[in-house]
Amino acid sequence: MTTAAQIDTVLAKVDQGLDQSLERLFELLRIKSISTDPAFAEECQKAAKWLADELNGLGFEASARPTPGHPVVVAHGHEQDGPHVLFYAHYDVQPVDPLNLWHTDPFNPQIVERDGRKMIVARGASDDKGQMLTFIEACRAWKEATGSLPIRVSMMLEGEEESGGKNLPPFMRDNADELKADIALVCDTDMWDRTTPSITTMLRGLVAEEIEITAADKDLHSGMFGNAARNPNQLLAEIIASLRAPDGSVTLPGFYDDVAEISDEIKAQWQGLGFDEKAFLGGVDLSVSAGEQNRSVLEQLWARPTCEINGLMGGYTGDGFKTVIPAKASAKISFRLVSGQNPEKIRAAFRAHVESMLPADCTVKFTAHGGSPAITVPADGQFLRQALAGLSDEWGKQAAITGSGGSIPVAGDFKHILGLDTLLIGFAQIDDQIHSPNEKYDLESYHRGIRSWVRVLGALAAQ
Amino acid sequence: MTTAAQIDTVLAKVDQGLDQSLERLFELLRIKSISTDPAFAEECQKAAKWLADELNGLGFEASARPTPGHPVVVAHGHEQDGPHVLFYAHYDVQPVDPLNLWHTDPFNPQIVERDGRKMIVARGASDDKGQMLTFIEACRAWKEATGSLPIRVSMMLEGEEESGGKNLPPFMRDNADELKADIALVCDTDMWDRTTPSITTMLRGLVAEEIEITAADKDLHSGMFGNAARNPNQLLAEIIASLRAPDGSVTLPGFYDDVAEISDEIKAQWQGLGFDEKAFLGGVDLSVSAGEQNRSVLEQLWARPTCEINGLMGGYTGDGFKTVIPAKASAKISFRLVSGQNPEKIRAAFRAHVESMLPADCTVKFTAHGGSPAITVPADGQFLRQALAGLSDEWGKQAAITGSGGSIPVAGDFKHILGLDTLLIGFAQIDDQIHSPNEKYDLESYHRGIRSWVRVLGALAAQ
Repeated sequence: MTTAAQIDTVLAKVDQGLDQSLERLFELLRIKSISTDPAFAEECQKAAKWLADELNGLGFEASARPTPGHPVVVAHGHEQDGPHVLFYAHYDVQPVDPLNLWHTDPFNPQIVERDGRKMIVARGASDDKGQMLTFIEACRAWKEATGSLPIRVSMMLEGEEESGGKNLPPFMRDNADELKADIALVCDTDMWDRTTPSITTMLRGLVAEEIEITAADKDLHSGMFGNAARNPNQLLAEIIASLRAPDGSVTLPGFYDDVAEISDEIKAQWQGLGFDEKAFLGGVDLSVSAGEQNRSVLEQLWARPTCEINGLMGGYTGDGFKTVIPAKASAKISFRLVSGQNPEKIRAAFRAHVESMLPADCTVKFTAHGGSPAITVPADGQFLRQALAGLSDEWGKQAAITGSGGSIPVAGDFKHILGLDTLLIGFAQIDDQIHSPNEKYDLESYHRGIRSWVRVLGALAAQ
Repeated sequence: MTTAAQIDTVLAKVDQGLDQSLERLFELLRIKSISTDPAFAEECQKAAKWLADELNGLGFEASARPTPGHPVVVAHGHEQDGPHVLFYAHYDVQPVDPLNLWHTDPFNPQIVERDGRKMIVARGASDDKGQMLTFIEACRAWKEATGSLPIRVSMMLEGEEESGGKNLPPFMRDNADELKADIALVCDTDMWDRTTPSITTMLRGLVAEEIEITAADKDLHSGMFGNAARNPNQLLAEIIASLRAPDGSVTLPGFYDDVAEISDEIKAQWQGLGFDEKAFLGGVDLSVSAGEQNRSVLEQLWARPTCEINGLMGGYTGDGFKTVIPAKASAKISFRLVSGQNPEKIRAAFRAHVESMLPADCTVKFTAHGGSPAITVPADGQFLRQALAGLSDEWGKQAAITGSGGSIPVAGDFKHILGLDTLLIGFAQIDDQIHSPNEKYDLESYHRGIRSWVRVLGALAAQ
């Protein structure tokens, strides 16, 4: 049982130790743990080891566990009181290209002041190293201020969230007994706005596919062969163009068949959030939403599936011009799914559609890059109420319950493999530029994120 | 006036000197004169200097003339008898990517034996260094065997044919008096087949454009923005898909308006060539032509315009997957034109079409990469008859009169700037893989190409 006085002591510890907390984050940010590129495999190992060492230093029993890919760090606290939470975050980061658009070295973190706000600028500052350390530093403050954690804490920190994460579900299955807990806590999401914390209860799923179209058996000269030889760049464009209707909807056969409509109650709640569509789009220099025109932007992002072309490549792409008809052209295509849609059914529909468009002489190679269903967290549990209370205490206003357009496959895995519900609590801001050049995490997100977890851990300790 | 005996002496000189001729070609092939990539500018200078030195050594007055781009080598023989020919070829080559598909270093030429034929394998072996040296080595043999050339010979050897060649027309205009001659000889085309030489009298023109589509002002996370944010990869695909109809025709408004139909006489002549569509397509592992379905493959290649997507790039194209909505996507697109079509009219129609497809929030940047009309050479001149006779003597069968799907812009420039007709005579084979990995030039093309020019120069000397 924790007291308000205890929590104040721990919070004071957080405030006093902020500079050291930042130094630790900077150490982790300097490790180039890009999981999707095999060239950075050792850096991923290094990040895992750094975390295991830190957690062992904090009194956890922690180790970096091997997988066929990058390690998973598992840690268990020695406390046995109260509910048992399993904390999740990921130490891997996105690639940094296009590098020339970064104002500073992505792996040399800096504190930058802009518009009166201090920001931590680095790849992974927000997604997800900064968020991950808010929780670890909150544990540190509890330990240092009171000698122990107020509840039973385990952690699972993975290194393949940005690269399909295909090794985590088997790892969870293999270690299901060890990983069982009462609730999962995931720190990989946004605040509603700069002053309003939120818990996300709806997440879109993801199906990612790579396709490679082959026509001739070699690159051809477009003068010698142009017109007569099938151009895979052209075919790829036709396939991609066929995936969207002019009204913004996705045309894949059966795509919307299983889509669950959101309730009027949730719609009303979202309307109450006062989301500013113009400001949201204007923040990235857009003015009109590109999705289904009869849906609000928030619905398009949280409650409607999409198809996005994430990468496109074929032929000569260097400086100047080369009059080539390439042998191959390829694309990386992903679908964001909502409640009701089955990832493997969507993947199969996509593959069948592509195959139906192949003319004579063309072949296609498909590569799956992971898939996960959307998940919805029950909005009425005790842990959710306690966590909302802890967040509301820290920020001095009611925490919001929101959806998210992104996919956090592990939340589905917690449900399906470990039988756990997940509380998605994060302190990122919409302008953090995650996955983009100049990714940042507000210093306030980091500082008050740590304080928020101190309070949430305290709140969960109350029976 | 040359005699058959003289020609036999020169041909014997060619045969005796073949090994040395090859050594000289290998020297030139080792120079990495990729004109489209600024990183290789010095190599282009080096190739130009090598040629000027060789030609001065042969008794020409030769120099590498500066341009705003790569140099143009101009050479004049001292002979004043007979007609005055201006020989053209290019010393620059295409980029070598994808490098991993080459079996040998593209800039370390090798003689490779395959199917009983010896081949020179290197970037530029066929296009166009090997072809260029057939003419220069023929001049060498004439000089060495008889002390002089049988006619008046000038040369113009350029270094930007593979990169738009925008500096050559102004160079020709600035030096028009010096470059005037009676006929231009261009060595950059194919033989009809392995045993039949040909003179090409129809060449397609070219309009090359690069387009870059911009939507948001930064790369976005497809979870956070997917559906609502315009995806330029998707838009680019829609634009490209709109350029071709299912029947293989190009849909650009007005595209076929000015296309000149070929005469029944030419159609009949082409039918007489015995072109094997199945073998042509089968040679690159295709079976069905992709162009207008009511046209023969030869018509599609020689007499019908096309639109080809030569390059496609947007978003993440590395290993693995990145769920990004890129800020930009780009394509390199070219149109091959036939007689009647105006390059600038086609370029304007393309740009207007792209702009008509742009939704709100999207912008497009166009970059022109050169344009030239198709050209047709009169099929009844004295020079053409003499050259056909020289070729027929060497190969022991009637030389063919053919078209070509490729573009040789300089033939148009000879006509429009210098008032010269052009004889297009080359010894390349369809399987030379120009612009592709493992480019080669048959040793027989090189040897008998030199011999052919010896005879053509002799034939042109006859009044």
